[in-house]
Amino acid sequence: MDFEGSILNQINSPEDLKKLGTDDLVQLSRELRQFIIDVVSSNPGHFGASLGVVELTIALHYVFNTPNDRIIWDVGHQAYGHKILTGRRGVFHTNRKYKGISGFPKRSESEYDSFGTGHSSTSISAALGMAMASDLKGEERQTIAVIGDGSMTSGLAFEGLNNGGSKQTNLLVILNDNNIAIDPNVGALKEYLLDITTSKTYNKLKKDVWDLLGKLDGIGPGARSLVQKLENAIKSTIFKQSNLFESLGFRYFGPVDGHDVVYLTRILNDLKNIPGPKLLHCITVKGKGFTPAEKNQTLWHAPGIFDKVTGERISISTEESAAPRFQDVFGHTLVELAEKNPKIVGITPAMPTGCSLCIMMEKMPERAFDVGIAEQHAVTFSAGLAAEGMIPFCNIYSSFMQRAYDQVIHDVALQNLPVVFCLDRAGLVGDDGATHHGAFDISYMRAIPNLTICSPMNEEELRNMMFTAQLPGMGTWSIRYPRGNGSMINWRKPFTAITVGQARMLRQGDDLAILSLGPLGITASKAADKLGEEGISVAHYDMRFVKPLDGKTLARIGKKFKTIVTLEDGSIQGGFGSAVLEWLNDNGFTTRVIRLGIPDRFIEHGTQAELYRECGMDLEGICEIVRKTVSPRVIGNVI
Amino acid sequence: MDFEGSILNQINSPEDLKKLGTDDLVQLSRELRQFIIDVVSSNPGHFGASLGVVELTIALHYVFNTPNDRIIWDVGHQAYGHKILTGRRGVFHTNRKYKGISGFPKRSESEYDSFGTGHSSTSISAALGMAMASDLKGEERQTIAVIGDGSMTSGLAFEGLNNGGSKQTNLLVILNDNNIAIDPNVGALKEYLLDITTSKTYNKLKKDVWDLLGKLDGIGPGARSLVQKLENAIKSTIFKQSNLFESLGFRYFGPVDGHDVVYLTRILNDLKNIPGPKLLHCITVKGKGFTPAEKNQTLWHAPGIFDKVTGERISISTEESAAPRFQDVFGHTLVELAEKNPKIVGITPAMPTGCSLCIMMEKMPERAFDVGIAEQHAVTFSAGLAAEGMIPFCNIYSSFMQRAYDQVIHDVALQNLPVVFCLDRAGLVGDDGATHHGAFDISYMRAIPNLTICSPMNEEELRNMMFTAQLPGMGTWSIRYPRGNGSMINWRKPFTAITVGQARMLRQGDDLAILSLGPLGITASKAADKLGEEGISVAHYDMRFVKPLDGKTLARIGKKFKTIVTLEDGSIQGGFGSAVLEWLNDNGFTTRVIRLGIPDRFIEHGTQAELYRECGMDLEGICEIVRKTVSPRVIGNVI
Repeated sequence: MDFEGSILNQINSPEDLKKLGTDDLVQLSRELRQFIIDVVSSNPGHFGASLGVVELTIALHYVFNTPNDRIIWDVGHQAYGHKILTGRRGVFHTNRKYKGISGFPKRSESEYDSFGTGHSSTSISAALGMAMASDLKGEERQTIAVIGDGSMTSGLAFEGLNNGGSKQTNLLVILNDNNIAIDPNVGALKEYLLDITTSKTYNKLKKDVWDLLGKLDGIGPGARSLVQKLENAIKSTIFKQSNLFESLGFRYFGPVDGHDVVYLTRILNDLKNIPGPKLLHCITVKGKGFTPAEKNQTLWHAPGIFDKVTGERISISTEESAAPRFQDVFGHTLVELAEKNPKIVGITPAMPTGCSLCIMMEKMPERAFDVGIAEQHAVTFSAGLAAEGMIPFCNIYSSFMQRAYDQVIHDVALQNLPVVFCLDRAGLVGDDGATHHGAFDISYMRAIPNLTICSPMNEEELRNMMFTAQLPGMGTWSIRYPRGNGSMINWRKPFTAITVGQARMLRQGDDLAILSLGPLGITASKAADKLGEEGISVAHYDMRFVKPLDGKTLARIGKKFKTIVTLEDGSIQGGFGSAVLEWLNDNGFTTRVIRLGIPDRFIEHGTQAELYRECGMDLEGICEIVRKTVSPRVIGNVI
Repeated sequence: MDFEGSILNQINSPEDLKKLGTDDLVQLSRELRQFIIDVVSSNPGHFGASLGVVELTIALHYVFNTPNDRIIWDVGHQAYGHKILTGRRGVFHTNRKYKGISGFPKRSESEYDSFGTGHSSTSISAALGMAMASDLKGEERQTIAVIGDGSMTSGLAFEGLNNGGSKQTNLLVILNDNNIAIDPNVGALKEYLLDITTSKTYNKLKKDVWDLLGKLDGIGPGARSLVQKLENAIKSTIFKQSNLFESLGFRYFGPVDGHDVVYLTRILNDLKNIPGPKLLHCITVKGKGFTPAEKNQTLWHAPGIFDKVTGERISISTEESAAPRFQDVFGHTLVELAEKNPKIVGITPAMPTGCSLCIMMEKMPERAFDVGIAEQHAVTFSAGLAAEGMIPFCNIYSSFMQRAYDQVIHDVALQNLPVVFCLDRAGLVGDDGATHHGAFDISYMRAIPNLTICSPMNEEELRNMMFTAQLPGMGTWSIRYPRGNGSMINWRKPFTAITVGQARMLRQGDDLAILSLGPLGITASKAADKLGEEGISVAHYDMRFVKPLDGKTLARIGKKFKTIVTLEDGSIQGGFGSAVLEWLNDNGFTTRVIRLGIPDRFIEHGTQAELYRECGMDLEGICEIVRKTVSPRVIGNVI
């Protein structure tokens, strides 16, 4: 990481960058790329996306007057170069670490981060709002949204284009077209971009016209001018009105080579002076400059620690990682179930690798659908499948499911359709931080009638919940599970149907009961053991279902315990603990309910362990609250 | 409504329709149109949309083999003709009435309603799912989505197109282009559709080419063939690859006259035999055949009762309607505030008339934005405006806000931006029924950190909440209020800032306390009066804020009362009552909380009064529950 005499070392702000000649920018690109490789190889984070926009990042800050001009980085995991060039080179090694800088742009972190991102496809809408505000305030500035071709498949991006294209405000959209999201991009737009990139249609027409012009050369000025007119009309048709973006009111420029930094500075300078909404189509390569990342772009989206010379990925094995990831249990189990039940299909909005639906896509390509970054569509598409008798397993990360909330209510639950939502990354996700924590799904799903909501404590439970959900007459389900590894080495047990709404008592006890939901039950079990050793007798129930709740078990608990602790990997505002409290209250119990879970504030990034600690949801946090609660006089053998 | 010897009287199912000759279809169109006019004039409902698709509806059922072929009516308020032709002519007078047929397609109502709708832009995604299911099951059928140009502006529709255009499945999208949503359609797509409808570009090119051909006639076969080739290339460019829908992989047909029923049957028959995704562009007139409705399409979207001959709209004045609608209080108040505070802007996703932002659009067009049917964009666009120092009042109906849940969390609340969400139609909306009730917003908003959530009991409170929300440093607010009229004749009081989180005690009492949120507080007041007359002493608090709650007041209430009743026009699952219960529990109170609100099931349509009755949220319901709860021994003067 030492760049003796390097250019990058002199860049502490875009001001410094502007002092360079354009000739220096190529060298700076090399250095910035190497800096990212150096740091990310030892402090893992997103990788390929930032490498792909090194030149674009430099050109943008070179040409535009940031922070007065605004750059909005869609999704934002490609903004590492931006962070490094805007005064955060020295702290970049803390990227995504607890109390370190965020892996995404963040308004509170830097004035250069003009709009926080994390979820895809927000940049055009945000930039349009910002540009309109500048117009209203009479402030002169450029507003630039940098958005990938994957993000462009989301409806939100289209809504932004449709609105922006009808305004006269000064807005530049840069389409960073690398033909991939995390997994390869899918859908009609992708094909379209490929077509205009290669310009087949135009090239063919142009050839025809020139042939014609050649042949007509001798006929005289009249015909010649007509043909010329014709060619102009064709050109304008193909490049203007006919272009998808021109159709939506944006002036289209490109495609241009997104790795030619000098050319980029030139065209960006030109675009500065063109008013109104406009789109620059940049072709880039995800992972550019690091061969292994260019070759396997999905793997190198966020590769973990790796050898920066050989490109060998280094796995850090921990005790837990002997057990499988919940993602893989989902992926393999779905295939097992689908092999037996021909009604089952799988749906993912652009996360086949992340959620492991790729396993089914490999084995049963006709029954597994990657619909692109389009959560709303994923859910309504699933509803359509279910309306015709299929049983769709629609896998969406908890925080992305927020995008499809209306569709869950309106298209699925209201019609009581048998869609099984599998909410991956439910709970605190760790390094990705506030934008990605799956904090709210229990609260927002619980309000929806007709829904069965559950969470497995371990791999076997996940399998059995998936098995049960696809049985006849089960209606709409939401099964949530967290990022990361489970707890069972031998998890491929035979399927057993679970009684809907039935809890499991894992441990008897007298002083207090812990009611846990999901894999945090493992921590609760350990806490009960530990507290038992201290002489505190704690009962433990794995409640499994948030909706319906196990009334019989709750009635027994309500009768026996004065105080219970609920534990969930989700917001305590209206979550699982609240459901338990509501039930007890509605049924005449005055049991005190201590609700452990994600508190009512946005939690930043860090390891999952650090964040559980912060929220008091780890072993020590649970033990502490129980010790405080259980007063000495009721503890038998301690007194 | 009497059609002696008419054709319509013979049509009890599409089977009957198919027996007609195409010549009869024109007459049937007239009769169906008149039938809709007759019924809707006396039993109010949506009007213009169904009149606009009379011919299309007849042609679809004439050509396609419903119910085996599937028609999905986007939004669905245009499906009256469809309902009448599919066996519901005899019950159509119960449309939107309590226990009557729904104003929208509904799977449980008829096998011809293949997918329930209500919210816009779901049809393409649902149809694609249904078509793919048919492919998987090896069932032969046609699947047709009928979608308006307004609905096409929503991101969900784009996501459906993008996914569908890359599949080879048999899907027909009919674009019902009437150039209007409820209010006139906006955005770049609208301009685009107008351009391809008028075919300016193509006509100009075609003329050039024919001129050229004429001039070249004598030059010989070589040039001629080149020019021919050229024309073909141009045509294919303009009509195929260059067309927006062709860009997205759909074969484009049209535009065609959507009121020529015979021609429609012909083209639909042709399209049956064209495999893959295709789009038919129909030009229709909203309100077609009823002159007043054609002339003022927004007013006649859902006109209420009217004289079917003169077109005079008949207002039914009730005692309450002397007070203004909450919508209008919002609209006028926003203008008052915006006149004083230059930072204020207004945003609506295609509901300027419905939410009364039209008042601001009229007075300050540069500061009020109708962004089209695009709730997600409306919220992120507002976030962009707020990031640049504006204070956006973003008005979205409660049930439509479900579409923008992620954007509220990710783009607004997480960045703590001063956006004031005004949630119109919060609570039971009445005739529109299950798809439109604003049942869930308290539950789903309450989980979001940084949010202030409140609801005014009356007009004055709404004004003061709006006033307070725009004061410096207020962060993100959600102000919810219901459909319909308030309770104050003189509502234009001077503004007063409200202390955030402060409740109002409206009545002292000893036996029990009612804690109400929002305008249901008026009913609660009446209940307290009535119960007082019966000797039951009921305290009444208008809590105003769900978040933050008024801890001081709750502590007093918790100390004094064994039982309280909470009352909210929203789901009791995780709603306002749950928030109160959580607070009491967290603070050591064991007060029993009886939560009145929308129960945990989907509520159908009816008048608001009928639905409040059904849910026990009306005067009698409140009194009953209080009487049952307050045992005789604590009631002083009754014993």
